[in-house]
This record gives sequence, structure tokens and C-alpha cells, in this order.
Amino acid sequence: MKDTVSFSELTAHQRLQRRYQRVRQMSLWLCKPLLIEDYGLQAAAEVSPPKWHLAHTTWFFETFLLKPHSPGYQAYHPEFERLFNSYYQGVGPQFQRPHRGLLSRPTLEQVESYRKRVDDAMMRLIETLHQPDILALIELGLHHEQQHQELMLTDIKFSFSANPLLPVYCDIPLTNAENANSALNWTAFKHATIRQGFSDDGFHFDNETPVHEVIVPPFKMANRLITNEEFLQFIDDGGYHDPLLWLSDGWQMKQQLDWSAPLYWQKHDEQWHEYTLHGLAPLLPASPVTHVSYYEAEAFARWAGKKLPTESQWEYAKTTTETEGDEQLLIEGEQPIFHPASAGSLTQLSQLFGSCWEWTQSAYLPYPGYQPMAGAVGEYNGKFMCNQMVLKGGSCATPADHIRSSYRNFFYPKDRWQFSGIRLVE
Amino acid sequence: MKDTVSFSELTAHQRLQRRYQRVRQMSLWLCKPLLIEDYGLQAAAEVSPPKWHLAHTTWFFETFLLKPHSPGYQAYHPEFERLFNSYYQGVGPQFQRPHRGLLSRPTLEQVESYRKRVDDAMMRLIETLHQPDILALIELGLHHEQQHQELMLTDIKFSFSANPLLPVYCDIPLTNAENANSALNWTAFKHATIRQGFSDDGFHFDNETPVHEVIVPPFKMANRLITNEEFLQFIDDGGYHDPLLWLSDGWQMKQQLDWSAPLYWQKHDEQWHEYTLHGLAPLLPASPVTHVSYYEAEAFARWAGKKLPTESQWEYAKTTTETEGDEQLLIEGEQPIFHPASAGSLTQLSQLFGSCWEWTQSAYLPYPGYQPMAGAVGEYNGKFMCNQMVLKGGSCATPADHIRSSYRNFFYPKDRWQFSGIRLVE
Amino acid sequence: MKDTVSFSELTAHQRLQRRYQRVRQMSLWLCKPLLIEDYGLQAAAEVSPPKWHLAHTTWFFETFLLKPHSPGYQAYHPEFERLFNSYYQGVGPQFQRPHRGLLSRPTLEQVESYRKRVDDAMMRLIETLHQPDILALIELGLHHEQQHQELMLTDIKFSFSANPLLPVYCDIPLTNAENANSALNWTAFKHATIRQGFSDDGFHFDNETPVHEVIVPPFKMANRLITNEEFLQFIDDGGYHDPLLWLSDGWQMKQQLDWSAPLYWQKHDEQWHEYTLHGLAPLLPASPVTHVSYYEAEAFARWAGKKLPTESQWEYAKTTTETEGDEQLLIEGEQPIFHPASAGSLTQLSQLFGSCWEWTQSAYLPYPGYQPMAGAVGEYNGKFMCNQMVLKGGSCATPADHIRSSYRNFFYPKDRWQFSGIRLVE
Amino acid sequence: MKDTVSFSELTAHQRLQRRYQRVRQMSLWLCKPLLIEDYGLQAAAEVSPPKWHLAHTTWFFETFLLKPHSPGYQAYHPEFERLFNSYYQGVGPQFQRPHRGLLSRPTLEQVESYRKRVDDAMMRLIETLHQPDILALIELGLHHEQQHQELMLTDIKFSFSANPLLPVYCDIPLTNAENANSALNWTAFKHATIRQGFSDDGFHFDNETPVHEVIVPPFKMANRLITNEEFLQFIDDGGYHDPLLWLSDGWQMKQQLDWSAPLYWQKHDEQWHEYTLHGLAPLLPASPVTHVSYYEAEAFARWAGKKLPTESQWEYAKTTTETEGDEQLLIEGEQPIFHPASAGSLTQLSQLFGSCWEWTQSAYLPYPGYQPMAGAVGEYNGKFMCNQMVLKGGSCATPADHIRSSYRNFFYPKDRWQFSGIRLVE
Repeated sequence: MKDTVSFSELTAHQRLQRRYQRVRQMSLWLCKPLLIEDYGLQAAAEVSPPKWHLAHTTWFFETFLLKPHSPGYQAYHPEFERLFNSYYQGVGPQFQRPHRGLLSRPTLEQVESYRKRVDDAMMRLIETLHQPDILALIELGLHHEQQHQELMLTDIKFSFSANPLLPVYCDIPLTNAENANSALNWTAFKHATIRQGFSDDGFHFDNETPVHEVIVPPFKMANRLITNEEFLQFIDDGGYHDPLLWLSDGWQMKQQLDWSAPLYWQKHDEQWHEYTLHGLAPLLPASPVTHVSYYEAEAFARWAGKKLPTESQWEYAKTTTETEGDEQLLIEGEQPIFHPASAGSLTQLSQLFGSCWEWTQSAYLPYPGYQPMAGAVGEYNGKFMCNQMVLKGGSCATPADHIRSSYRNFFYPKDRWQFSGIRLVE
Repeated sequence: MKDTVSFSELTAHQRLQRRYQRVRQMSLWLCKPLLIEDYGLQAAAEVSPPKWHLAHTTWFFETFLLKPHSPGYQAYHPEFERLFNSYYQGVGPQFQRPHRGLLSRPTLEQVESYRKRVDDAMMRLIETLHQPDILALIELGLHHEQQHQELMLTDIKFSFSANPLLPVYCDIPLTNAENANSALNWTAFKHATIRQGFSDDGFHFDNETPVHEVIVPPFKMANRLITNEEFLQFIDDGGYHDPLLWLSDGWQMKQQLDWSAPLYWQKHDEQWHEYTLHGLAPLLPASPVTHVSYYEAEAFARWAGKKLPTESQWEYAKTTTETEGDEQLLIEGEQPIFHPASAGSLTQLSQLFGSCWEWTQSAYLPYPGYQPMAGAVGEYNGKFMCNQMVLKGGSCATPADHIRSSYRNFFYPKDRWQFSGIRLVE
Repeated sequence: MKDTVSFSELTAHQRLQRRYQRVRQMSLWLCKPLLIEDYGLQAAAEVSPPKWHLAHTTWFFETFLLKPHSPGYQAYHPEFERLFNSYYQGVGPQFQRPHRGLLSRPTLEQVESYRKRVDDAMMRLIETLHQPDILALIELGLHHEQQHQELMLTDIKFSFSANPLLPVYCDIPLTNAENANSALNWTAFKHATIRQGFSDDGFHFDNETPVHEVIVPPFKMANRLITNEEFLQFIDDGGYHDPLLWLSDGWQMKQQLDWSAPLYWQKHDEQWHEYTLHGLAPLLPASPVTHVSYYEAEAFARWAGKKLPTESQWEYAKTTTETEGDEQLLIEGEQPIFHPASAGSLTQLSQLFGSCWEWTQSAYLPYPGYQPMAGAVGEYNGKFMCNQMVLKGGSCATPADHIRSSYRNFFYPKDRWQFSGIRLVE
Repeated sequence: MKDTVSFSELTAHQRLQRRYQRVRQMSLWLCKPLLIEDYGLQAAAEVSPPKWHLAHTTWFFETFLLKPHSPGYQAYHPEFERLFNSYYQGVGPQFQRPHRGLLSRPTLEQVESYRKRVDDAMMRLIETLHQPDILALIELGLHHEQQHQELMLTDIKFSFSANPLLPVYCDIPLTNAENANSALNWTAFKHATIRQGFSDDGFHFDNETPVHEVIVPPFKMANRLITNEEFLQFIDDGGYHDPLLWLSDGWQMKQQLDWSAPLYWQKHDEQWHEYTLHGLAPLLPASPVTHVSYYEAEAFARWAGKKLPTESQWEYAKTTTETEGDEQLLIEGEQPIFHPASAGSLTQLSQLFGSCWEWTQSAYLPYPGYQPMAGAVGEYNGKFMCNQMVLKGGSCATPADHIRSSYRNFFYPKDRWQFSGIRLVE
């Protein structure tokens, strides 16, 4: 995938076309290990089938770019507006989310043809565009697709895990080599008034703005994520059986869903294993614990006598510290490992990007003065600002050019199917 | 599929081999209209994906024939015993029924290979067999597969109907020609003591025995099934809004599930349509109403001032009356119509076989002296003798050599996804 | 409560007035052990508070007798028609059943005043009555009240059992004296054509008619009910853990509701106890096992290699056998024991009346030619003829003048809060 | 209830005894309008019966004061520790919350005797006390009881509303006189760094600390609460039918629970009425809208083009503004009106205390450096810091000496049974 001309020689239009193609191809590339039968899997209401992801991300461009801005564009299929609308009430009614797996038709072939048709039209549209707000919408569509690339991976993992055959998504085995860490150590941060939120030029979601001042009292942050080995101590110490360690809602959820370990942990012959996108494997002690809910992360922190970071603390730490060499993000053209790796011998602040999404103790709420985007895309972020918690940092399934310090991911406290992990502060 | 030698020249073993092959091929033939994506569809817990049906019927032969009776037979896959066990506790634990649609693996190709492997072994086993009880088990396996052929069709219909694109299973259009009937008329039956149950030589399920005497008071039976047109009168007369017409449990179910018409009826532009395996079509007035629950059938009967037949009445009528020319069953080698057809100008008792399963007012209970089969296959019928109602007669999706007068089908009163219809008595 | 004149000297009107008063007083007498706080208890949707029973039985007379047949009668309260209507759609809408416990108003005092007002009006109405159908309605109302007397007792028991303080309804202790039995023995019955249903003159429910002929093959019936001791053998033999002993629906229900013993059994210090209306007591080994579901009764019978009787078998046995000395019914003026007693040394057929309701393997269905009563009271029985099983014989909580051989009680197979027990046949 | 000596002449112990007695008597005084039947009402899992409130508040003193600190104290009843434990896992298991209404025993009389016994022991304990931390625990118990006084009122209201007879708790009629307001106007607040949280000497909950600095950008606050009349405009403008006005979770909840107006609104003869503790009354247009969820408050704010205040904004406004003459709190010895009153002609900032609890857009989270109290009482507040929103200001059902600017009340966004209302900012 090497460029034959240097990227800087291209025009802005050509650069956007290139980026458009690369992002779109990445989605297909991530589906390569799948068989046709896998494309329809939906093991829970909040999980979508890969085929649906492929169609929905295409729908985004058709609905918000081609229909309004490409004169003469004909919708690929009259029913797709409904079938592949996720939650945009401003666009119209949506096919019921829990039933997406029942859409055996359109077939994979038809969805690929839908993608092709929309991609061709988008290539032509880009050539003629000059309005910055429409170019921004295309950029939004690409970041939207990148979000779905991560979801596709975590959704496949979840759906595969419902099959006792435990299918392997990526046949490169996880290695136990160098699976060791230095002891946890702590970086101190002074009292400060920080500017939180996005303040640069480039792309960002509306929920990262406006930038605003926040007072942050002094704190210390753990240099790396909590490992499986450390989490095992919590389990062995009765962490899942002591209600005093848990938030009230968390304890109820734990009881109701009968949690006794992170999502993909399984015990075989008295030995802990973990189901991963690389198949079932013995638990790697020094790898970050992942697929834990906010409730489990919070209980672990209480047990450890520490706290989870606030969003402000995390952003302060990330933007004021050198944290080189610790990124494990999804990079085009490189063979990824779809599982968080050990921090190894690093002792400075590390694993802030890539690895796992880190639960913060901050609720997902609007920044002061927040304004959602105009139009139906205004539903993208704003309407979810209730009942969810902010996660920071990206994971091993996050595309590398999609993450920022100001990025605010959000999930319900009970959610476990993302690559979510634990960072402590004190 | 013509035989090159006359069937009577074949040995008993050859005849069984032939029958085995034909029944097994029929399952594959019924799947021909499906695309790979369709094989995993499961739109409700009580509905199974086509691929699962193909595997489970194969599992039956592997489990009850090959493993115990074919020395040296190696299981195709160690996990299949669990994955494709439907409900046989005597065999072992079962993969959860509502999640069958999540088994993207094994793939269709693997399931076809599983079928081939088992079929080859079965061909060899049959050649060596002499014990009548094992031959009877093979016959049971074939009838088992034929039951699943009908279920495959009704399950596909149900799962397809969840897709707004309403896929067409069979592209032969339903015809409106001759869609008219004579008025309902009534055949009288005298008071009699009948012998109910199976008393011939051939194959039958354990639940049809022992044959026993039952006193049947005089009654009259309607010559044909209730039509869509007649059912529309019930609807237009407020049948779905008058609790006095309904059984108490039926009214609750109707309220809870918000029923206002048979399962596949849809109103478009003030015109009733019906989703069929031949696609969405305007409602045919003279065709039998189908896909109604027992509750709806019973409410219709009360509204009409009639009753549903008892199992005894139905069997009495069927076994003592000439009812030629009315069968619409699934026949190998003929192009079927997967929807019940109008009785046309017939005025004598008709539509007793084929067309629709007919709800009786008899609960599914053991006959006096009933003994289930020995071993794990004893779970086939007996353990379901509670909470279900008997249906008689077979439907347009029932294989022709699978039905008998003494056949007892059974479903819950709320079930609507079978080809179930209404016959009245008075 | 001695009569000062002999009962035979009274006029028919006076006799009906007497009977009316006695039945009505019995309801109040049964409530004597209750405190005001107890009158509103409703521990499950299918259980009603005592106060509601007192009001609903009164509503029956007001609605079906006084309003239509007592000129000038003024409804006690305009809202009571709705509040105390149980399920009569023909009368009008009903207050939601699961919320009956929320009716703190009307108070107990007001409900007692409601009873008094209706009783006075009924006394006057009876004096003027001559139409047999209206007299029959009064008789129906009295038997209706007697049914509710039994329900009141079983409902109180169920609601009290939800309180860890386990309130005592009757402070006469259950005695262990003579709590022993002879071994089970069997009475043989020959093949016969019996006349099933009610054929005498007196009161009966519509569901007991019409009388009709039924062929009953030969069978043997156990002379007494299954005891706690015998049921313990089933438990100790793993009866609650072997799915092969259970109906499919029964096994699911057992798993879902986590049954491991009859409803009111509790283990304290490795010793089985039973909560009774006489308080918590050590389990009496020779007393009949009670508060079992149909599923448990049926599983026990399969484990024992026997069957439950059919309705026909039971009625045949009861009507053709001398069974003196075995009744334990509720009798006015006598101090009852609200728990089934041991059969003691009796060896002939016993415990057919009183003691426990006996699950039959007959579904509750209409007799051939069944016609419900005319008018709204037609909803009394007929609309429940689906999904329920017939029980015969009455219990220790059944008023003595309320039971007959032809009486058909009916409950769902999962129901356990009645005094339901197990009789075997072979 | 006049004091015969001036309050200042009393010793600290006497003052605490006085306060203890007054708070405890207030609970009983609030129950005076109840009949015995009302004391057990529990119309939803999150609502408790009045009798349970009376016992639980007593349990608090018995458990946290008498048992550990009063030598020789004998528990009133061994089961009460479990029966009346609300949620303190550190104390032990709890009787299931949704079943509190099933505790007909202990009777009201017994609970009153329990209160008396505990009160006597508390009087004696107070006399001997010198440790400030134990005195603080008593103070906590009194504020705990005051919280339950408000809950008792809102719980009674909710449970009464389930009865079609709509019982009247307080027979003083709500008056329509002066039910009018000035138009909404706005008070401006400058950019500031405020100190948020409790920093005085007196009683406060742990969740109000530590006091900490927060930057508040400039904003304007509406001078009064939103009225019924204003909320009607939202309804009439289709507010309950436009998903674009709602948070995503809010819209789902609205659909699921079928909301179309605030909790207690009912339409009779095309005229809106409201059920209140003073009975059903025509909707008062100028009274504050109350019993709305966070979702409804937030949707209203979006519809109005405004926002709900943050916790910081509210506290800033309250602590820096003169807001005399606007309190409508529960005051001992005065006849309260249990419904929020109109702001009348007031034009300055008003209704901040009393009237309604005001939804803020702040999630209920720990303040930076928050430490829960030591011991089992540490479960009082901290473990609920997830999924709930902060409400400020108190209501007409809040005891006057129980509220502070720094007070943080919290409920789930879906909760509607508190006196919750809407204040806007811009």
C-alpha cells in the first residue's frame, strides 16, 4: 500500500479522496477473516452484525452527503434509509436494533455493491466540493466509520464468544514472551487550572468543545494499566463477594448477571483462560485486564484504596507528559495484535493511548456552553449525555488516526464488551 | 429422479436405502432457494435456523444409530453432540435453544459435509442390519426428518417475515384463479364407539397408541376449512375487541401480544395482504385462514356459534368418510405450492389432509395405557404432554408419506407460526 | 349456634335465609384470627387480600341479585362495581388484579358495613322470591362464597409465608400423635362404562354437566394419599435433579423457580419443617404431602412407576366405593384443623374427600355438549377451560357442604398454593 | 407545643433531647391522617410503607447508637435487624425491598411500642454522652428521619394514587386564589470561581464535602420555577411526541412507560386535573409543575431553548442572592400545604428553597477528595454515586431545619414521585 508519489504533492481533494478510500478499505480489510455466515451475527441488542456495520457506515455517506449534496443521486434502495439508520430520529424511523441480525437480505454481495456505488459517487462528489462545512461532514463520516471499525471488532468478539466452538478471528497466536511488568509506580501532578477540551484546528467531535477551564487538585497517576495478575488478587481476595466494595447499582448488576470475573475469562482445569480475537488462550498475567465494567473497575479501585481518574486528570496527565513508545493502536498496513499488550519494562507513564479504554469516574455530560452540530447529525453525540461514563485513551482496536487527548468515549457503567481497562490515581 | 428398476424388485435393504436417500435429499431440496446468509436466521426462540435443522436431523442418526450400532464409527466433531441436541436430556446437555442462530460455525459447507459423512455411514449400516428395533429407529429418524422439513418451511417463513424486504422463498406466484368456494355445509355423524389411535402395521409415533375405545356422541362437521373471507367477518364484527368471545388466557395473550389479525396479515392502503412463502400477496378470500392460534380458532368458533372438533370427532370423520381429491401435501418430485389452496367447488368433506393443521379442542394427553419408547428416544413425545393442544390433518408443508389419521401434532394454544387453520363442528 | 326450632319446620324461604346467613358468617368467622393489617396482604398476583375476598363475595350478590332483581336497590358505592369485579367482562372493566393489595380504602370497617347492607337487602329479597332461576343464582352466590372461603385460607397462608416472622393463623398446635400410616395398598376397579358428571337434583356448577358416558379401562387406585415421608424418598433419590422424571414444561418451571421441595418446606438445622396455618412445625412424616404442583405430582408418579388418576377414574372410584370415616372438611361450628391429617391405620380407600385436592392427569376441558350459564355468570367457569388441570376431592379447607364427586376444581400445572396432593393409580 | 422555658437556658444535652423528641414526634404527626390499613401500602419497589418508615428510622438509632453505645441494651426483637435494614450491607442481610408491604406483622401497635422503647433508651443515652462523634451520629439519625419524613409523604401520595378512590391525605383544599405569576425573568451571574460544598460548622452529609473550588462561567437564572401553564404549552406543542427534544434514554423510557404528562396529571372531561395530597383538583395554572422526571425537565428545557442549571450554578445563585419570602418548607407546629404554591407576584429570584426539588444537569458524583464516613454508615451516601442526578433546594415536603444550600439530593433520571420541578438557566 505504498504511495508512489509523496503525499504532500497531492491536492487537498486528492488527499481527501485518498483518505476516504483508505478508511473505507480498512473496514473491508477487517472483515477478511469472516465467512459469509459470520456477517449476520448479533449476540446482543447492543451489538451489531458486521454486515450491518458495513451498510450503516455507507448509509451515513448516502444520507448526509449524497442525498442532500449530490444532485441527481438516486438512492441505492428505497428501504435502506430505514434498514440502516441507527438512531437518527431526524432522518426517520429505524429498523429495530435488536433485530439487525435478522436481515439476511440484503446479502453481503448486495451490501458490497452498495458500498461500491456510494464510494463511486463520493469520489465524484469530493472532486466538486468547496464548501468547508460539507468537507467537514465527509471527515465526520470517516471518523464515524472508524468508530464502527472498532465496534465491528468488539462486536465480532462478543458474537463469536457465544459459540462453544470459540472461533478464531486472527490466527496469529498471542505470545507469552516478555509478558512481565515492572511494579506499578506513580507520577505526581501539581494543582493546576487546565484547559479541557479540543482547542486545535483539526477534526474533533462536538462533544469535545468548547474548551473550558477546570481546576484540578494535585494527584498521582499510576504509570500503567492494572494487569490480569493484579485483578486476580482482587478476585482471590473475594472482591466479587463483598458488597462493601461495590457501588449499589454495581452490586445489583453483578448479582443479576452473575459476574465473577471479567467478561471473557473462563476457568478450565483450574486454570484461567481468556477468549480473545486470537482464540482461547491461557490468561497472560502481565497483560492489562480488559472487558471490565465501570462497576468492576470502581470496585477494584476501592479495594486497592485508590480511585479511577477523572476526565480532567486524565487529560491533564496526557497533555503534559511525555509518553512515547506506548501506543498500540490500529495502523493501516501493519499487522495488528487485537489484544492489549503488557507494558513491559516501561516505568514512566505509559499505555495512555492504545491498549485499553480507561474508565474515568466522570459522567458523560455536556461541557459548559456545549452546542450540538446543526441538523440530524446533531444527534450524533448530544442525546446520549445521560447515564454513561467517559472513557479515555483508545484501545488496541482504535484506528491510530482517530484518537486524541480530548476524545470522549462513553459507555454505560455495566458495559463490558469494549476493550475497557483500569488506570488508578491516588 | 425416476427409478430405473421397479421399486418392487428391490430388496428390503435397498428399499430402506432408497427411502433414506430420498428423505435426506428432500431436506436439501427445500433449502435450494436459500442464500448462505439465510441459513442462520432465527427470529424467535421456538424457531430454528435452516442450518441447524440440517445438522440436528443428521445428529439424530449419528446419536441414535451410528454411535450405538455402527462399530468403529467416529463422531464427526466432539462438540456436535451438544450443539445439535434439541432436547434429549438422556443424551446430555444442550446448547441453548434461543441462541441457535449464533452458530455461524460450523459453516453450511461443514454441515453439508457432516450430512454426507453420516449418510455414507448410514448406507453401510443399513446393509448389515437385521434387528427390527434398529430398523424401526431408522424409520423414526426419517419421520423425524420429515417433521423438521415442515418446521424448516414454517421457520423460514417466520424469520423472513421479520425482514421489511419480505424475501420470497418460492417465486411461483399464488394464483387468484378459481379462488372461490361453495357455501359451508355439514356432514352428520352418528353416535358411535370408535377405536381411536393407530392399529395398523406400519410406522407410527408412540403417542398414537394404544388404540382404545372412545364414545363419540352425534355431531356434524363442516365440509371445509374456514376461509379468509369468513374470518374477515369475525374481524369486522369486532371479534378481536370482544372479551366475551375469548378464553380468559386467550384474551390476555391477545392483549399482551397485540393481535388484531392472523399472524401474517398486513393492511396496505386499506387492503388486506398476506405474507406467504410466495411473497406478499393480496389476501385470497376463498383460501383457508391460516396461522391462527388456538385462542383465535376457539374465539372464532364461539362467535360462529359452533365448536372446534375433538380429536375423536376428527378421527372418526376422517376414517369413515370418502374424502378424495382434497390432499395438498408435499410430494417428492412435484412442484409444491407452499400455501393452503381454496377447496373450490367441493361440497363433500374435504381438506382433511394437507391444506392446514386443524386445531382440535382436545388437550395433548397420553392415551390410556400409553408407554413411551425405551431409551433416550422416549423423550420424543411423552414429555410434552402438558399445556398443548392436538392438531390433526397435516398441511401444505407436510410430506405426503408422513401423515396418518391417527397422527397427533401438538402446539401451545398461543402458537401461530404453523399452517394452522379452523374446522368447525356443531 | 344451635337452632331453637328443628330445621324441617322452616319454610323454604327461611331455610335459604338461614343458609345465606350461615355461609356469610362463616367468611367473617374465618377472618377472626386476622389483625387489621393482615386484611390487605397480597403476596402474589393470583392471591387476593382477605378484605378483597369479603368485598368481592358481597359484590357478587349486589351485582347479580340486588341490582337486577331488587327494585329500588341503590349501589353501596359507585366505584365498587369496578373495584370488586374479579373477571366478569360482561359486567364491565376490572381493577387490576395484581394491585388489589393497594386498596387500603375502603377500610375493613367500610367493607363490613358493605356486607351488612347487602345482607339486609338479600334477606328482604329472599322473602319475596319465587323464580327458581333467581333462587339458583343465590345458591350459586353461596357456593361462590364458599370457594372464596377456601381461597381466603390458602391466600392468607401464602401471604403470611412471605413474612420472616411466619405468623400463626390458628394457635392450636398440630399434633404428632398417631402420625403413622399403614403401607400403601391398592383397590382394583374393573373395566366399565361410567356416567361422568352431575346427574342429581341439587346444586352444581355448569362445568359438571352434561352427564355423559366414558369408557374406563381397568385400573387400581392407591388407598391413601402420598405422605411427606414417601415424598422425601423422591427428594433424597434426586427427584428434583433428574430431568428424565419431569414433563418438559415442568422441568423448565422447576429450573426457573428454583424448586427443590414442596412450597412450604424449609430446612432448619438439617431438619425439614413445614410452614402451616398452625405455624412452623417439624415435618410430620405420615401426613399427606401438600402444596405440590402438577409437575411435581407427575414427576413423583413417574419416579414411583405409577400414574396420576384421570378424572374419570377418580369419579368412578369415589362413586362406587364405601369410603367412610375419611373426611376432613371444613364444618360450621366445629374447630377445624387447617392442615391435612394422616390416614392413620385405615387400609381401605380413604382421604378421597377433605385432606388434599388431588391432581388428575385430565386437562380441564368442556364435557361433550357443555353449555355455560346464560348472562355474565356464564364467565364463571367456561372461559378457563384451557391450560389448567382438574383436581378432585376437596381439602381440609373446603367447606363440607360445598363438595361433590362431580366437582371439578382446576388450577395451572405450576400452581402450588392450594392444598394439592398426590394420589396414585396403576 | 410552646416551650415554657427559653431554649437558650437548656443544656446541650437537654437541647439534643428536645430536638430528638420533636423530630421523632413529627414522624408520628405526619401519620395522623392515616388509617391502620394505609400503613402497609407499597405501590412500587422504590416506595416504602409508612409503617416501615416508622420502624426503619427507629432501627437506625437502635443499630448505630443503642447496640454499640448503650451497654446492656437488649434488641427489641431479634428479627428487626433484618426486617428494617434498608441497604446497609455492613450490618447484614436485608429483607427484600419490594416486599416491605407484606410485613403486616409487626403491627402498627408493635412498631409504636418499638419506637417508644428506643426513644426511652435514647433519652437515657443522650444524658450520658460526651463523645462528639456519637453526638454526630445522633444528629445524623435525626436528619435521616427527616429525609424519611419527606419520603413518607411522597410514598403515601404514590401509593394512594394507585387507588381509584384517590384518598385525601390532607383535607384542607388547595386554593386557586392568587394563583397567578409575573412573567419569567432572569437574574445574571458573573464569571466566578466559587467554593462549592459545605464549609460551615453545623450538620451536613459527607457527600457535601470537601469544599472545593469550581469555575463557573457567566449565566442567567430564571427567577421562579416553571409553572403548569408553561408546561402545558410544551405538551400542546407536541413535546411528548417529538424525539428530537429528548435524551435518547429519556425517549426510550417515555415510550416504555407511556408518559404523556407529569406523574399525577389526569384528564377528566377535557379538563386537566392533578392528584395531590389534598385530593384530586383542577390543575392550578400558576403553580410549579411538579413530579416530572429529569428526562421531562431536560426535554422541556431543550424545547424552551434553555438549560437546566448545574449544581455549581445553583449553589452560586443561592449563596450570593437575597431570596427572602420564598420558602415553603415543612415547619413544626405550623399547618403545612403539601403542594408547591405559586410564586405569585415575586419578580426577584425566588422558590429556591421549599416548593420543588430542582433537577440539575449535574450527575451525582463524589467531590474531589470525598471520603465516606467510617463504618457501616459510610454506605449512607457514597455507594449511590452512579446513574443519578443531583437535585437542589428542597420541597414543600422537606422539613425546614433539614435543608442547606450545599444539600445534594439525588434520584434516577426516570424518577417522578418526588416533588421535583424545573428551573431554567441560559
